[in-house]
Amino acid sequence: MTANLAMAEKQQHQTTEIPSLCAEIIAVGTELLMGEVVNSNASFLSGELGRIGVNVFYHTAVGDNPKRIQGIFKEALSRSNILLVTGGLGPTDDDLTVSTLAALLDTPMVRDKVSESQIRKFFITRDMPMSPTNLKQADRPIDAEPLYNHMGTAPGLFWDVTEKVEQKGWGTGPKYILAFPGVPREMKAMWEAVALPKLKPLLPNQSVLITRFLKFFGIGESLLGEKLQDLMAQASPTVSPYVGQADVKIRIAAKAPTPQEAIDLIEPIEAEILARVGKYCYTKDDSLLEDVVGQLLKEKQLTLSVAESCTGGLISSRLTDISGSSDYILLNAVTYSNEAKQKLLGVSATTLEQYGAVSEQVASEMALGILKQANTDIGMSITGIAGPTGGSETKPIGLAYIGITSRNEKPLVKKVSVNPQYQRPYIKYWFSQYALNYLRLYLQDLLHSD
Amino acid sequence: MTANLAMAEKQQHQTTEIPSLCAEIIAVGTELLMGEVVNSNASFLSGELGRIGVNVFYHTAVGDNPKRIQGIFKEALSRSNILLVTGGLGPTDDDLTVSTLAALLDTPMVRDKVSESQIRKFFITRDMPMSPTNLKQADRPIDAEPLYNHMGTAPGLFWDVTEKVEQKGWGTGPKYILAFPGVPREMKAMWEAVALPKLKPLLPNQSVLITRFLKFFGIGESLLGEKLQDLMAQASPTVSPYVGQADVKIRIAAKAPTPQEAIDLIEPIEAEILARVGKYCYTKDDSLLEDVVGQLLKEKQLTLSVAESCTGGLISSRLTDISGSSDYILLNAVTYSNEAKQKLLGVSATTLEQYGAVSEQVASEMALGILKQANTDIGMSITGIAGPTGGSETKPIGLAYIGITSRNEKPLVKKVSVNPQYQRPYIKYWFSQYALNYLRLYLQDLLHSD
Repeated sequence: MTANLAMAEKQQHQTTEIPSLCAEIIAVGTELLMGEVVNSNASFLSGELGRIGVNVFYHTAVGDNPKRIQGIFKEALSRSNILLVTGGLGPTDDDLTVSTLAALLDTPMVRDKVSESQIRKFFITRDMPMSPTNLKQADRPIDAEPLYNHMGTAPGLFWDVTEKVEQKGWGTGPKYILAFPGVPREMKAMWEAVALPKLKPLLPNQSVLITRFLKFFGIGESLLGEKLQDLMAQASPTVSPYVGQADVKIRIAAKAPTPQEAIDLIEPIEAEILARVGKYCYTKDDSLLEDVVGQLLKEKQLTLSVAESCTGGLISSRLTDISGSSDYILLNAVTYSNEAKQKLLGVSATTLEQYGAVSEQVASEMALGILKQANTDIGMSITGIAGPTGGSETKPIGLAYIGITSRNEKPLVKKVSVNPQYQRPYIKYWFSQYALNYLRLYLQDLLHSD
Repeated sequence: MTANLAMAEKQQHQTTEIPSLCAEIIAVGTELLMGEVVNSNASFLSGELGRIGVNVFYHTAVGDNPKRIQGIFKEALSRSNILLVTGGLGPTDDDLTVSTLAALLDTPMVRDKVSESQIRKFFITRDMPMSPTNLKQADRPIDAEPLYNHMGTAPGLFWDVTEKVEQKGWGTGPKYILAFPGVPREMKAMWEAVALPKLKPLLPNQSVLITRFLKFFGIGESLLGEKLQDLMAQASPTVSPYVGQADVKIRIAAKAPTPQEAIDLIEPIEAEILARVGKYCYTKDDSLLEDVVGQLLKEKQLTLSVAESCTGGLISSRLTDISGSSDYILLNAVTYSNEAKQKLLGVSATTLEQYGAVSEQVASEMALGILKQANTDIGMSITGIAGPTGGSETKPIGLAYIGITSRNEKPLVKKVSVNPQYQRPYIKYWFSQYALNYLRLYLQDLLHSD
């Protein structure tokens, strides 16, 4: 699956003859080693570095233990140019990142006056009592610069340690340390606002990596891989599949001296992929199905209502995650009981009796019913079995019927099946993917028929 | 925040005088370094090792590059007893884990007959064409054992390399390598079915770590920290707070020779915590608010209906994530437009006119309306502003009103405010937390009043 990424990395590795800096990401914090926190900071920062053409060769996580932290830092300084360190900047005694770095590089600490006043201000503006230990966060190695944290009390750190590392004989070439708080939203804000602008000018004129994501639904990774095998075998641009939560992404990545040159490499490949499997592709800009559907509804100035049974409101919630969805969503209903299906949607007792709640006929009547009740242009429905109970021989867990209708039109109903071994919330999510994708195809056909 | 975890880790570190094995987790795969995949395997395995009393001191991720992989393995074998390696077991040329390990330890590879037949069987039973490269996955170092993968084609590996590492002069003591596929569900299944049973008998009689989570809503981490400061300062059991998605967890962890002894250490601390901040605690067994509310509704044999505006179906979806929720959920409505609020819930035009859709009065009428429409014991409503647009001076983004009523009872309405800087879906989630927690308190008062 990662053949081309590997190739890409090997290439990147070869190109290190041209001055190109490599980085590694170090997370400090025992909570990571306890398994209760996932290190999402490492993937965020890796993606960001890739975009500015910096290769990341290692991720490391280490606990709040001075000896082990120093060992990791020494190793990292010897093999990498840029260290991005997350965590260990807090006010408590176990927050060791800065003091450990200072000790490792024999550098005295000073209290940064600007950081100190910012920390005091943080508590005053929030009318919160400040503990004196908070001021410890203003301490920095004497020749390091603080990175302002506008979302929390822990300032970050930018430190050029090129000479110190060379004097120690650990390694040569540029050596920069950037330290961030471990809280993802603080780290991200700091990266964008102060760290990236600080780092970028220091980078040699190196190639940029441009990536584009095509997202697919209704085709498996293996089949997609087969159809794109030859493209995936190419060294550049690299074409690689990723299995998403309930879809597949194809990543096209190209390295070039300038963004435009990279894009010029990507576009013919993208066109070729779409020519082969375009009908399964629901976005070329990494957006979500609810975005795509929302866009289509806006373009056509159509309103939508949804009657959900087995998804319990998930489709409605996803549709309303989109800002501006109140333009096309007026009323949705979660009709869990048969009574609700009859009373609110006018599903006939006979149909429920004769075919059961999970049936093509009921999906069809639900779609017509919600369209009438909400008086929208399009009505969509879903009825199915999310499990883990309620399955039968003829109607197994994972079975659902999706209905779609618009004014003066016979409803279309699609039968879908999801792996019954999945957890109930995941089966619900798969159902919602099927429904939103079916709606997307329905809306796109409407567009074409113009 | 992790003061006590740090203490715990230091303790664990001290206890290495008693033979106690330490582990590290190594992820192999360039996709991790590209930032598109989060290394959730490391946190899962760390948690599992903690439960059997094995300390994890490092996580590492490295790309599909033989030189760097060997460097990481050598370093890890010298400082740790157990290496859990994830990824790089696939059929493609860039899947290097096994061959690189064999080369590093000068060990010839053989094709495992059992694994080979299992791989062939995998494709036959699925009626899928097998590519010859798939059989490469059956290769293993001659003195290593395969770990059966019943969810995929890549067998894992168990390899006792104690002697080889000692001969190399890299380190002494037990040295075990366990390799897993990178796909989380395959890795987890393999861990539970074959790896854990294999590893456990090899461990010295060491203490077990038992953890318990109390989850809180409506109290911030800092205030919780203040109220529990003395308990958090204790070395054992350790008491540490974690900020959740929209709540705070308190983790109580104790190490002892047996689970029962650990539990005996945990329980008095738990009782003390609940005595201080119990009213904010919504679960003692790490369950979700929708679980807790569902349990209460079942106990009381009450039915519930929800009318949502700003949350767009999220509350309904969360409630129906719980298996068996059809016992107490009959009908929920997402009344996004004013028309829907009037037509379906009977909210009066005058009220909407006079107070606006986001108001105490409308929340109250919505709760009464959905109770009547769905004919349930309890009716809940929410109306608010999820942003990023639609806020005003008097009604800012993040404002919501939650209404609750039951038959022949005046509705109660709670006003809540969420940080308007949050993303729309996250504001929706906070709203749903407030609503479910308010419902929990409402139901618990009902229980008490029995």
